Amino acid sequence: MRIAVLGTGSAGRILAGRFAEVGHEVTIGTRDAAATSARTEPDRMGNPAFPQWQAAHPQVGLADFAVAAAWAELVVNATGGAESISALTLAGADNLAGKVLMDIANPLDLSLGFPPSLLVKDTDSLGEQIQRAFPGVRVVKTLNTMNASLMADPGQLAEGDHTTFVAGNDGAAKQTVTALLESLGHRDVIDLGDITAARGSEMFLPLWLRLMGALGTPVFNIKVVR
Amino acid sequence: MRIAVLGTGSAGRILAGRFAEVGHEVTIGTRDAAATSARTEPDRMGNPAFPQWQAAHPQVGLADFAVAAAWAELVVNATGGAESISALTLAGADNLAGKVLMDIANPLDLSLGFPPSLLVKDTDSLGEQIQRAFPGVRVVKTLNTMNASLMADPGQLAEGDHTTFVAGNDGAAKQTVTALLESLGHRDVIDLGDITAARGSEMFLPLWLRLMGALGTPVFNIKVVR
Repeated sequence: MRIAVLGTGSAGRILAGRFAEVGHEVTIGTRDAAATSARTEPDRMGNPAFPQWQAAHPQVGLADFAVAAAWAELVVNATGGAESISALTLAGADNLAGKVLMDIANPLDLSLGFPPSLLVKDTDSLGEQIQRAFPGVRVVKTLNTMNASLMADPGQLAEGDHTTFVAGNDGAAKQTVTALLESLGHRDVIDLGDITAARGSEMFLPLWLRLMGALGTPVFNIKVVR
Repeated sequence: MRIAVLGTGSAGRILAGRFAEVGHEVTIGTRDAAATSARTEPDRMGNPAFPQWQAAHPQVGLADFAVAAAWAELVVNATGGAESISALTLAGADNLAGKVLMDIANPLDLSLGFPPSLLVKDTDSLGEQIQRAFPGVRVVKTLNTMNASLMADPGQLAEGDHTTFVAGNDGAAKQTVTALLESLGHRDVIDLGDITAARGSEMFLPLWLRLMGALGTPVFNIKVVR
């Protein structure tokens, strides 16, 4: 499958590398591919400059958001939650129309320090905002309840014996995403319902952040025991 | 230990019965014990009238909030989140002073139908509101992430192999609560940190509610896999 991963941060990189590893064609989308390719300094999160990463992953392409989205069969939103709508607008509603969009972003407000609060919650969610802004796109909220390393390779923890959620209005899109997740090693994918269930998975983030502090590692996940 | 459980709803009843079963002295606190004892109709949640329940649990006492709180060594807030501050005010700051208060309530706004939204979130929590309103009380937020039946008897699901959280400012109070939880069968109690971590466990509720819908049962819990 041709997968565009929008976002050059650690989540985008790790997922893009993993998708390529399991046999997909992958292009990372960015605001300005020429500028991203010219970077020499680490990004604001301390990740190595993108060209360094790409040199180690030559099978992953890089293109402007719109070019990547137009080319792809499935698009992953791995941009920061605060920038997702503007990134998707650059990707272009026409380029996204009819396609499955895996939205893995969280609407974190990092402007006031740690722990971040949520830019939207309770009666709305980023997943719903994206679905409303791009009604022709088949949005599936998923993976936003774990760190990027586990998104890409869940088998590294307890042989993958933990839970992943999907939420969205399009059943076939959720099936496509579920199959893709299972190909990465996700063994327990729970369908939470329509896209409004993104409220639930996004509002899990405050507990996730506390758990990261308590456990001293981001490499954990929840398993729904039933 | 002398335990006062404030609240006559299903959570209060189930916990009170279980505390008595494992050997504690237990009194349920209510706004007006005479009125509660005179009830003949099911409550608004459909639970049998309190006297019916008490007839089957004669070892559990019933008293006004203040009498129960004054008598107790440890107090459990099992009132509805919207009524917790007023119930604790009736219990009396002097009667609660210095005591451990297990706060198991969630600040659900049930006035607008299902699913409920949260009355407080993100930058505050019910646990913190209670701690601020009663600075002399040693508040420990716990058990609010699962249904009442699992709070009381976690061993009924996967032999108790799932997770319970505590949050509070007083380390000794959290130790007391953790030991009490373990005596009920809770095997994995994670200390999330100070009372501000109640934001995390209370904001889990929207995900919990979606999971209840997806799974078709409230008898599930999360295990933190690490």
